[in-house]
Amino acid sequence: MNRIYLDNAASTPVDPLVLETINRAYSACYGNASSMHSDGTRAKELMENARSRLASVLSCHPEELYFTSGGTEANNWALKGFAIANRSRGNHIIISAIEHECVLNSFKWLQQQGFFVTLLPVDKFGIIVPEMVKEAITAGTILVSVMHVNNELGTIQPIREIARIAHDYDITFHTDACQSFGKIPLEAENTGADMISINAHKIYGPKGIGALYIRNGIGLEPLLHGGGQERGLRSTTENIPGILGFARAAELCHASRIEEQNRIEHLCGKLIVSLNTQFENVYFNGSPEQRTPGILNFAFSGQEGEAIRMLLMLDDEGISVSAGSACSSNHAASGGSHVLKAIGRNPVEARGAIRVSIGRFNTESDIEQFCNALTRIIQKLNPIHSF
Amino acid sequence: MNRIYLDNAASTPVDPLVLETINRAYSACYGNASSMHSDGTRAKELMENARSRLASVLSCHPEELYFTSGGTEANNWALKGFAIANRSRGNHIIISAIEHECVLNSFKWLQQQGFFVTLLPVDKFGIIVPEMVKEAITAGTILVSVMHVNNELGTIQPIREIARIAHDYDITFHTDACQSFGKIPLEAENTGADMISINAHKIYGPKGIGALYIRNGIGLEPLLHGGGQERGLRSTTENIPGILGFARAAELCHASRIEEQNRIEHLCGKLIVSLNTQFENVYFNGSPEQRTPGILNFAFSGQEGEAIRMLLMLDDEGISVSAGSACSSNHAASGGSHVLKAIGRNPVEARGAIRVSIGRFNTESDIEQFCNALTRIIQKLNPIHSF
Repeated sequence: MNRIYLDNAASTPVDPLVLETINRAYSACYGNASSMHSDGTRAKELMENARSRLASVLSCHPEELYFTSGGTEANNWALKGFAIANRSRGNHIIISAIEHECVLNSFKWLQQQGFFVTLLPVDKFGIIVPEMVKEAITAGTILVSVMHVNNELGTIQPIREIARIAHDYDITFHTDACQSFGKIPLEAENTGADMISINAHKIYGPKGIGALYIRNGIGLEPLLHGGGQERGLRSTTENIPGILGFARAAELCHASRIEEQNRIEHLCGKLIVSLNTQFENVYFNGSPEQRTPGILNFAFSGQEGEAIRMLLMLDDEGISVSAGSACSSNHAASGGSHVLKAIGRNPVEARGAIRVSIGRFNTESDIEQFCNALTRIIQKLNPIHSF
Repeated sequence: MNRIYLDNAASTPVDPLVLETINRAYSACYGNASSMHSDGTRAKELMENARSRLASVLSCHPEELYFTSGGTEANNWALKGFAIANRSRGNHIIISAIEHECVLNSFKWLQQQGFFVTLLPVDKFGIIVPEMVKEAITAGTILVSVMHVNNELGTIQPIREIARIAHDYDITFHTDACQSFGKIPLEAENTGADMISINAHKIYGPKGIGALYIRNGIGLEPLLHGGGQERGLRSTTENIPGILGFARAAELCHASRIEEQNRIEHLCGKLIVSLNTQFENVYFNGSPEQRTPGILNFAFSGQEGEAIRMLLMLDDEGISVSAGSACSSNHAASGGSHVLKAIGRNPVEARGAIRVSIGRFNTESDIEQFCNALTRIIQKLNPIHSF
């Protein structure tokens, strides 16, 4: 059975062209990039070439990009590394209430180390009002971190405005761009962000590789100490096949970004119309305007308690969707999504949403089959309501 | 030109069978292992199956193995994570003077956080005398960390005896086994180690993946906070192709370990005889007995200043060897190897060694060609001395 994969915000299949790059790297380039011989220097050259190409996609200088093992490490490093290195300047940090778990939990750890964290509320669409950032700033604030696109809602944050406010007060601004990089415009120099986390497995690249953009002049304590790789800031033997695959994945996204965004917007529009037509009680979470088209979060009024069952029944029909983010799939079953709570949903509603995330390999037929399957499932669950 | 790669201690080529596994994983299993649908649960099943197989090679329980991005992260996590979680019990740590940079530099960071570190000296062969560990123990000692096999010398440390002494004083013992795992016997339950760092790219597996064995009952603070993967101890989207490749690589090593060890011992024996026969002034660093056969460290008396030149001339002849560890290749050119200094070599000698490391894909012909090339090079460098 050919499955229909509509969970691209959790992870994407690797593009065959990227896999080709990875294979070439594995077969032809096995040296340690820190070695002095040709096998090493060749690996290093390929890596630096990949860094330049990735930097060109992100519109930054290559030396401002540091490879990591993924988005989680990039976020952990940006936040902990910056806070620890800049503790003498202050111990207050501002983040949004809807950040990814790796940001929230990095700050919980920093709180144990004596830092104070302000969680910014969001409006009912899941958007930060930039003025709120200004109000939260204290004399001891050293860092503001707000994600670019929310992973559960697809909501786009006004990061340029937030960066500008932070800079007015000489505060550093970080953004987790793992859900936006390669999908919507993101140019490091234009965003005003001082640090940007990105990763590969959300853009049809390999798992286990990501990067942190660190604007020249921003000081960070390393998270991984060792042999001095990545200009002393992130030690470990360089993952050349992963790095080369990441750069290739980013270039492929960049080359087709506008037409692909239009295509996905079209598919998502179709999905919204179908849902609105087929289900009287459907409602959407997130912003109707300020959103990336790849992520759609919705629920059925009065049937929120059935979301997990719907998800499993869809799975039985060969369709993969999610009930929130992958990283919090266990929590979603119990406490409910912190993101949905932050936009004002009650605990039942916060457990009851379905997230469909559309990607490169999805077609109109996938959307149709999903809508048909959902109709059958809702009928089974509640035959009186649906007709 | 077919190059001869004799730098397997820096990194190994990926075995074609491992690459096959990685490719299968990339093509067939793209779900996020934390997702609830079949694409996710299938990824999780494959991952847990790989964890079990890897645990079986290491002789431990699967739930005692936590995946990381490599040996550097495993070592950083073991040391910082343990120290921070157990600070209330004491703030003194004992390590050997010849640990890998990632261990040494993790401890430099811990010193900044208020920990005290004792560096254990080694004997002239690079071996820790277990009694010295006993002498270094104080009332505040919480951790002893000694590597299993040294990456520059190939020297094997008496880790069982060291673990026993540590345990006599209720102290936790960690070993960095990145150079020994898959090559010489290493059974978690027999070593007495409470934590063991291993990685894949030294055993013909992929770069970017490693693991930390943590004996049940040992408490660690996570290094990467986030979505709660790896039972809450190491968050990030699981690198399934890397994990599956790691397990396959470990099994391949395990299956042929004894015959492969004999084969490499034979090649290394041949190399030693050739060097001794061809060069009057050759001398060896490390232990003639307590060593892994894959690593041979040697120098030419009175010609230590030429080591880097020899390495580059060998490279011109298509042969990759190293002047110390890959991770310290830049330091080797300047300050000299901290390992060679620790065994009593002077600063000139500490910059003057050549490390040959033999692996799965090397043949007798590689060793012969290396020795012939070296003879030509020594002649060029110093025609009077060599004849």
